[in-house]
Amino acid sequence: MDIAVVQQPLQRLSGLLAPELQEVDSLIRSRMTSENAPRIPDITQHLMDAGGKKLRPILTLASAALFNYSGYDHIRLAATVEFIHTATLLHDDVVDESKQRRGRPTSNLLWDNKSAVLVGDFLFARSFQLMTETNDLEVLSLLADASATIAEGEILQLTASQDITTTESVYLTITRGKTAALFSAAAKVGGIISQADEAALSALFTYGDALGIAFQIADDLLDYTGKDDTTGKNSGDDFREGKMTLPIIKAVSQATEPELAFWQRTISHNQQQAGDLDEALRLMKKYDTLASTRAEALTWAERACDAIETLPECEIRDLLYDLAGYIVNRAK
Amino acid sequence: MDIAVVQQPLQRLSGLLAPELQEVDSLIRSRMTSENAPRIPDITQHLMDAGGKKLRPILTLASAALFNYSGYDHIRLAATVEFIHTATLLHDDVVDESKQRRGRPTSNLLWDNKSAVLVGDFLFARSFQLMTETNDLEVLSLLADASATIAEGEILQLTASQDITTTESVYLTITRGKTAALFSAAAKVGGIISQADEAALSALFTYGDALGIAFQIADDLLDYTGKDDTTGKNSGDDFREGKMTLPIIKAVSQATEPELAFWQRTISHNQQQAGDLDEALRLMKKYDTLASTRAEALTWAERACDAIETLPECEIRDLLYDLAGYIVNRAK
Repeated sequence: MDIAVVQQPLQRLSGLLAPELQEVDSLIRSRMTSENAPRIPDITQHLMDAGGKKLRPILTLASAALFNYSGYDHIRLAATVEFIHTATLLHDDVVDESKQRRGRPTSNLLWDNKSAVLVGDFLFARSFQLMTETNDLEVLSLLADASATIAEGEILQLTASQDITTTESVYLTITRGKTAALFSAAAKVGGIISQADEAALSALFTYGDALGIAFQIADDLLDYTGKDDTTGKNSGDDFREGKMTLPIIKAVSQATEPELAFWQRTISHNQQQAGDLDEALRLMKKYDTLASTRAEALTWAERACDAIETLPECEIRDLLYDLAGYIVNRAK
Repeated sequence: MDIAVVQQPLQRLSGLLAPELQEVDSLIRSRMTSENAPRIPDITQHLMDAGGKKLRPILTLASAALFNYSGYDHIRLAATVEFIHTATLLHDDVVDESKQRRGRPTSNLLWDNKSAVLVGDFLFARSFQLMTETNDLEVLSLLADASATIAEGEILQLTASQDITTTESVYLTITRGKTAALFSAAAKVGGIISQADEAALSALFTYGDALGIAFQIADDLLDYTGKDDTTGKNSGDDFREGKMTLPIIKAVSQATEPELAFWQRTISHNQQQAGDLDEALRLMKKYDTLASTRAEALTWAERACDAIETLPECEIRDLLYDLAGYIVNRAK
């Protein structure tokens, strides 16, 4: 197989699902309007224009396609998960005090934190209206649970921030909540509306869960290895914010006493000065934590692939397979 | 009828519904826990300890009682509306930068804005899980719509803030969204689960809508007429924040040129100095806008009463009737 093709499974999935993605787009556009509050479409449009990867709606559409779903609920649910994702982005930017998202100023900078909070709430409510239109109680219950798990993950991340005793296990709980919960729900709902059997639903859930974890680990890695222009974020942001991600957690766990003092000063007390990011990177190199973090992301990608082995063999399944590796390889 | 009794319909409703309210309380307590994020119950408990009036859950329980509902969904839905209300309080305090709520420091002061945003999100998700457990699609759809309307009302309020051209009609749209949408939904869901007929459901909705509007107008009035220790808020907060509520809207609409300059400086440009609140109050007195605002609240209270005339005659209905007047009379 052509290597260039293998590396672009996301684009190929987008291509295969192009008609459905277009329907999702127009549903999103029609539902982000508000008769009374024009600020809502302004802000949402700003985020949509920045052009996300649409990973979550693609998961829903792909899993429905795996089971030859015919109907309109996959479009509703793909729009639902993108609305939930967009809402969490808005609230994340308030919480992280971010200045850039996808290479553009964040909405909390362009408007204000207040608008970002309230438009996020509106998009959550819209997602909830959309999913209710499926009249599928199993779907509603799964997405309600996912929403609660996402919020718990975000709150746990907040309390773990600047806490250098954060373990890899806590990191996993955070990641599973804030990122993987929506991936697993997005994949599974496509199966639920297709009336796939329990084994298939469980496979889709596990795939989404493992893919989400691999994705987040790779994302955290990119914060240290990526260039601003490829990630659209400021490199080293996580270090500056005292976010405890795997590269730091692994370095802290092996730190000598003077190194621990460095982490305490820069992370626990957030007293940073010029050269600290370089020193942090030197310590990550010393303990090879960027490589071991990458290995962990690959392990989760493999778990994702293993999960869908029993699903119907077809081009979509093969692309979902390739997607897992591709997601980690972004962070090379 | 004893006047003291007439003035306390809320306490009498609480008394009549005490066993149900206790069940609601314990359901709320059991659902605000989080295995992973102890900050969630900490913050929620802080709000619950402050002891709100529990008006919204009382509406749900009362409307279910009107139709002799027997089951558990009224408890779930009463807890649901209280969770939604608590979530909006948390986000409101972030948006308003409030320092006091119900006479206690707000959670955004005790913790931080980040926690208030995320715990609010968690409570929204919890409310959504709870209502999903009723398996009632009509209820879900109504509450999803209400959630979107609430967010739209809040956003419209934000864009109307400091805008002295805000009309009474825009004020009504804001109020109907941010406050009345949850009142009307809370009242109607109690009827839905009781399988009340369409006319009764529409009566409950209209009652909640009118009661919510009366309540909010009275609340806005209290901001100018109440003492800190009775409202638990800082008196004059709305003026300082440039919030366009009826007493100001009515004064601006009749303002002379120098008065308009005063409103422009203090509200549009938010350039306030010592004595400005007194001057604002003097202008409200000049045009008697506190009295005409109060009259408007009473009109809405009457509409609420008219709406439920056709509902089954019983003590609960009489108390709902009295509640409307009581809610406005707080703001004497």
